[in-house]
Amino acid sequence: MTHGDTATIGIDLGGTSTRVGLFDSAMHLVHSLAIPTHPAAGPQAAVEGMASLITELARYAPQHRILGVGIGSPGPINLNTGVLGLLPNLPGWDGFPLRRALAQATGLPVTLECDANAAAIAEWKLGVGRTTGVSSMVMVTLGTGVGSGIILNGRVWHGMFGMGGEVGHATVEPEGPVCGCGSRGCLEVFASATGLLRIAQHLASSAPATCELRHLLHRPQGCTTLEISLLAQSGHHLAQGAFQRLGFYLGIGLANLISTLDPPVIAIGGGVASAWTLFAPTMFQTVHDYSVVYRLATPTQQHAYEPDRTYLCCAELGPGAGLLGAGLLPHLDADETIHRPLTAASGLNL
Amino acid sequence: MTHGDTATIGIDLGGTSTRVGLFDSAMHLVHSLAIPTHPAAGPQAAVEGMASLITELARYAPQHRILGVGIGSPGPINLNTGVLGLLPNLPGWDGFPLRRALAQATGLPVTLECDANAAAIAEWKLGVGRTTGVSSMVMVTLGTGVGSGIILNGRVWHGMFGMGGEVGHATVEPEGPVCGCGSRGCLEVFASATGLLRIAQHLASSAPATCELRHLLHRPQGCTTLEISLLAQSGHHLAQGAFQRLGFYLGIGLANLISTLDPPVIAIGGGVASAWTLFAPTMFQTVHDYSVVYRLATPTQQHAYEPDRTYLCCAELGPGAGLLGAGLLPHLDADETIHRPLTAASGLNL
Repeated sequence: MTHGDTATIGIDLGGTSTRVGLFDSAMHLVHSLAIPTHPAAGPQAAVEGMASLITELARYAPQHRILGVGIGSPGPINLNTGVLGLLPNLPGWDGFPLRRALAQATGLPVTLECDANAAAIAEWKLGVGRTTGVSSMVMVTLGTGVGSGIILNGRVWHGMFGMGGEVGHATVEPEGPVCGCGSRGCLEVFASATGLLRIAQHLASSAPATCELRHLLHRPQGCTTLEISLLAQSGHHLAQGAFQRLGFYLGIGLANLISTLDPPVIAIGGGVASAWTLFAPTMFQTVHDYSVVYRLATPTQQHAYEPDRTYLCCAELGPGAGLLGAGLLPHLDADETIHRPLTAASGLNL
Repeated sequence: MTHGDTATIGIDLGGTSTRVGLFDSAMHLVHSLAIPTHPAAGPQAAVEGMASLITELARYAPQHRILGVGIGSPGPINLNTGVLGLLPNLPGWDGFPLRRALAQATGLPVTLECDANAAAIAEWKLGVGRTTGVSSMVMVTLGTGVGSGIILNGRVWHGMFGMGGEVGHATVEPEGPVCGCGSRGCLEVFASATGLLRIAQHLASSAPATCELRHLLHRPQGCTTLEISLLAQSGHHLAQGAFQRLGFYLGIGLANLISTLDPPVIAIGGGVASAWTLFAPTMFQTVHDYSVVYRLATPTQQHAYEPDRTYLCCAELGPGAGLLGAGLLPHLDADETIHRPLTAASGLNL
């Protein structure tokens, strides 16, 4: 970092931990710090914790002007007002004016986004979007829940209520299981880490007691999607079936996205996306079966970005996308367009 | 019309008839003519028929410069190339370069759109969009099929393949009946005129032989959605049930649209929309049940446009929307934005 340069702060607010990063103007992570999130301690305490970390991080860039703070928060958030909605992982935080409180605690301009939108911004500016050069794309994040961010003609699409695309809460099975959001058969119920465990549980419930998947799911400490994916990779049919079922419903959700928006690129990210090879074949087949637009444009599965067809691909940036996207937020203006060209060194396609 | 004024031609190409209209610069319909569409005679003959009607209509505006021709065609069309796709009602027309052929036959600039996009443009410029003043809206047309047009920030959203939004072919029931497009459980299978007849047929199949709905459906000459709606209005439970089932699946489709895009306005048009009171209560209830964004923003059914929430309403323009939208097309530039401010007399909100 050179004298007189600028920096930004990115915050990834999660249900279990909060990560704060300092980025230089080329969007390199200079340093980051994390603290546990204590939902019960309330949002004001969390904001004060973030402010302390920012003070600490600022020491790493003493000569730099900090442009602002970007924060990615679990949704729903009313992005028009900067006020949190009912967050399943942060009970009692609803109604909290996060944007205003963080600006008051830090004295810095604060840009608030849903975590999924922040990840989408990062993939657009520095991941799949940079590789393909598109100005419109959708990112679907398969994590504990299913988030999504929609970029249309160089702007993050927020929708009327200001919540951004909530593709994870689009219905893929009207008679499906009840979702945490109160609806039924949402994509999130099937294509999230939680959804995968539920599907695996369902499949294993009628399996013999010797079934490895059943054993894994019944352990007192529970099991992770990684463990199920390892079992599937070792050839376990039921574990493979769980990923195929996830791939089917993800395919329905993506087919609907293509029927509705037909975007140039859809990137699939989040922890579950690392099991890409286990669910992608079923996902592609389902998109093909359920989307006339995709069938017309894409006779066979597509392996690279081409004009005239939606490119469905795995996200490039991995688990750091949310923090990186948060750090990018101060570079976006209120109109959701980039207002300050980043330096050439960053390699951003602006 | 005054000397030196401009005019446009709008064409609504349908499977049974083709209507051609002459509009003045205030978008008043000066005169219109219609001819039957003969699918078997092929697309070139149809183009020549349209060209004759245009010559005839031009006599009604001898002092006027005709800016161009706008044509709304059934989809799928590749809007990038102007070539027709596989049209269920116009077999053998696929691959025909409609835009180029019409430009050659008329010597006028031609703008081609899906019929549903043309209707959406009309509702945006002269219907619900004018009433509400929005720059983004979705129109869903419930006709023989289900079409849709998406306007985002003052532009028609065409998507990658250039087909525009095909919300009618988004899946609302993965195990649902096969659709004409080759997918399964598309919105069109439930919420079109054809879909309503199919639902009614299904409901009436187990009814006693004296059932009026059953009688209606079994008549040699068939029956119309209007007849079913009259029966429902007279209090017939099964006929009412058919509209409620339509309303349920329409609600799923709209909830998904709200979860994905959360647009300011969704207008429901097309012939089936005239039965609004028969399906709207179930539609609103389903959107409320299946969309967390809508529930958060709209605690009760919304009767007028308000900021911060999607306004779901019946389209204003009626069956002429497609022709009017086609006539508006020459006023849009290649970038899908208005390039020529219309006169104040037109009352357009530009």
